[in-house]
Amino acid sequence: MERNVCLIAGGMSEWGVREASLRDMFQEAGKACFEDNPAVTNKDVDGLIVASAYTERCSFQTHLAPLVAEYLGIKPKSICARVELLCASGSSGIILAYGLIKAGIADVVMVAGGEKLYMPQKWEVFYSELASVDHDWDGAQGLGLPPPAFAMVAKQHMKLYGTTEEQLALVSVKNRRNGLNNPRGHFRQPIDLQTAMTARPIVPPLKLYDCCPVTDGCAAVILACEEKAKDLTDRPLVYIRGTGQATLNNMSANMPNWTTWEALKVAAQKAYADAGVKPGDIDVAQTHDCFTISEIIEYEDLGFCEKGEGGLFIQEGKSDFGGQVPVNTDGGLLSCGHPFGGTGIRQAIEIMKQLQGRAVRQVEGARIGLTHNLSGFIAAHTVIIYGRDKD
Amino acid sequence: MERNVCLIAGGMSEWGVREASLRDMFQEAGKACFEDNPAVTNKDVDGLIVASAYTERCSFQTHLAPLVAEYLGIKPKSICARVELLCASGSSGIILAYGLIKAGIADVVMVAGGEKLYMPQKWEVFYSELASVDHDWDGAQGLGLPPPAFAMVAKQHMKLYGTTEEQLALVSVKNRRNGLNNPRGHFRQPIDLQTAMTARPIVPPLKLYDCCPVTDGCAAVILACEEKAKDLTDRPLVYIRGTGQATLNNMSANMPNWTTWEALKVAAQKAYADAGVKPGDIDVAQTHDCFTISEIIEYEDLGFCEKGEGGLFIQEGKSDFGGQVPVNTDGGLLSCGHPFGGTGIRQAIEIMKQLQGRAVRQVEGARIGLTHNLSGFIAAHTVIIYGRDKD
Repeated sequence: MERNVCLIAGGMSEWGVREASLRDMFQEAGKACFEDNPAVTNKDVDGLIVASAYTERCSFQTHLAPLVAEYLGIKPKSICARVELLCASGSSGIILAYGLIKAGIADVVMVAGGEKLYMPQKWEVFYSELASVDHDWDGAQGLGLPPPAFAMVAKQHMKLYGTTEEQLALVSVKNRRNGLNNPRGHFRQPIDLQTAMTARPIVPPLKLYDCCPVTDGCAAVILACEEKAKDLTDRPLVYIRGTGQATLNNMSANMPNWTTWEALKVAAQKAYADAGVKPGDIDVAQTHDCFTISEIIEYEDLGFCEKGEGGLFIQEGKSDFGGQVPVNTDGGLLSCGHPFGGTGIRQAIEIMKQLQGRAVRQVEGARIGLTHNLSGFIAAHTVIIYGRDKD
Repeated sequence: MERNVCLIAGGMSEWGVREASLRDMFQEAGKACFEDNPAVTNKDVDGLIVASAYTERCSFQTHLAPLVAEYLGIKPKSICARVELLCASGSSGIILAYGLIKAGIADVVMVAGGEKLYMPQKWEVFYSELASVDHDWDGAQGLGLPPPAFAMVAKQHMKLYGTTEEQLALVSVKNRRNGLNNPRGHFRQPIDLQTAMTARPIVPPLKLYDCCPVTDGCAAVILACEEKAKDLTDRPLVYIRGTGQATLNNMSANMPNWTTWEALKVAAQKAYADAGVKPGDIDVAQTHDCFTISEIIEYEDLGFCEKGEGGLFIQEGKSDFGGQVPVNTDGGLLSCGHPFGGTGIRQAIEIMKQLQGRAVRQVEGARIGLTHNLSGFIAAHTVIIYGRDKD
């Protein structure tokens, strides 16, 4: 039988607008990860996967994995490589580490990810955005910049399903409330509905608080085979139960549907099937709320509600604590920010803590958790399901 | 039991100084890969890993994996991500795909890699090289540029072990001879010893033919679980038997030894142990001959000969056809060129063909093959062992 794989530690650098360099923040995140579980040290780690998307352009550094290994005192012998799937680089790294451990190629792997994105001049980030979609087809038209693209998605969803600007704003209000006590997040102040609704427009219908910020930060987790995990932690074991990563198109002209994300459905279907669970079994989820509209569509395409009912789902409190499935319990991208390679790892840390009963804002009795990480202009979707039980 | 994993197809774009863009060359390589084994189509492929190091700076394109998927008509559901470990990005992709298939997370995965590096102005490549080592410590001193770094290694090896410039030149003469009939390689003309010895100096003791060229190109392979592989090819199955990827330092100041590559020994040791073979069992090897001195040190640290005897190993023809272990039978980096993400995949294709008995220059009866891929300033080493037999 293939081996079971567990999450045994996780930590983050402080996230926000930082004066630190990318390597500083990787070091902070690695340190926080080891401090989260002092039973595991850099000597136990036999592999390192680093997740980062804009390191070349924004940090002038490629061949990043050996550099991070050196700064963390890790000497990998099974894997030492970087993975990039833009906004979903972090969750990609977790899937790849999961494969290596499950297959018996590695035993204990750190997945560390993050970015230094904020620069006063903003040019490198601006250029990088245009290079993040198909640059000959979409980038050349300026479609690489996320707010206009997601504004079109929001407009279409409103037109087809009657979703309202207030429903969008409610996602932001919830996630800012969830991020309130998160010690590492970018924003830690709540906002009320009035503030969200009257904020300055970015690209209508998206207003300031409908958009996640430009954030610097890193995060790291350690995955281990079950046997090692038992040695290396006394906390409840958190198993990876299923994964899916799907793409059906890249350029926007080939997108089958802007408001039903088919690739998300394919990725989720595979992850649910692997895990042997249904959407109704999920106790807590971290989804990719890069914009408020994203979270609403994710409720639908992850199967938490019917198509077109995402607006109602937030309005009726079904994604809040005490609701059907609390979503983005640590504040999500809207509160924590979104240093691309870090996001999927931050999501994993929050799910690990939720399933171990030690989250800042705890979902009582959570046993099955899900993360969803989106990349490109809705081009690729990554879903991972975690459980307190093996199967 | 974990599943066995086989190489079932491989193909390359033309390699050289190309007017094609990176996406064109990925398409050429993908097409060549499917043509190599018409039984497998893009519909059979459930995962795609793309290996590329300089895509951001030299091709202005990140989030490359979904773009390549779209251009090849592949709709991944298990994995769709890019991997970067500079010069060893390609072999890293193979290890990661191997893990996913062995673990049962994916069944049929394409690993496609390559670069568009040559530009008349050369600035993006120049900058990228400085960003490929630790840019604060080594890049800032200009140590990112490979010829000076490897010239120091060569000088030290000559001083310690009496290695001669003629022995270096013989590596180049052999590999140019091996690349003679390779229909995709960058250089396809032989050179004689006289030509190699009298070529213009690059950084003494390295002369023109001691250095691999700047090359554009892509390559792709398809890996499948044994069960699918049996359905998808009538050729002999080529199994991945063992892998290792090690790094002990990144910046040059922390390198334990410039002429004994400890991380290579660690990676090779793990790969040999996984595969249950010894250096003497290897019938054919593709090693990372970015410079002639590299191949000489690789003979030693892969265990083909004793430390310090690499010069003699080439001089006595032990790495040539008919010798102890033919090395770089398709011409290696010195003939084929080195579009970083493509190299590890080219090596895998050549080993697959050798073990299936259909290489351009065939090692008779080869059953066990090895690839070695180096990255950074000798910072990280990747070793993969393939076999005609499962174990």
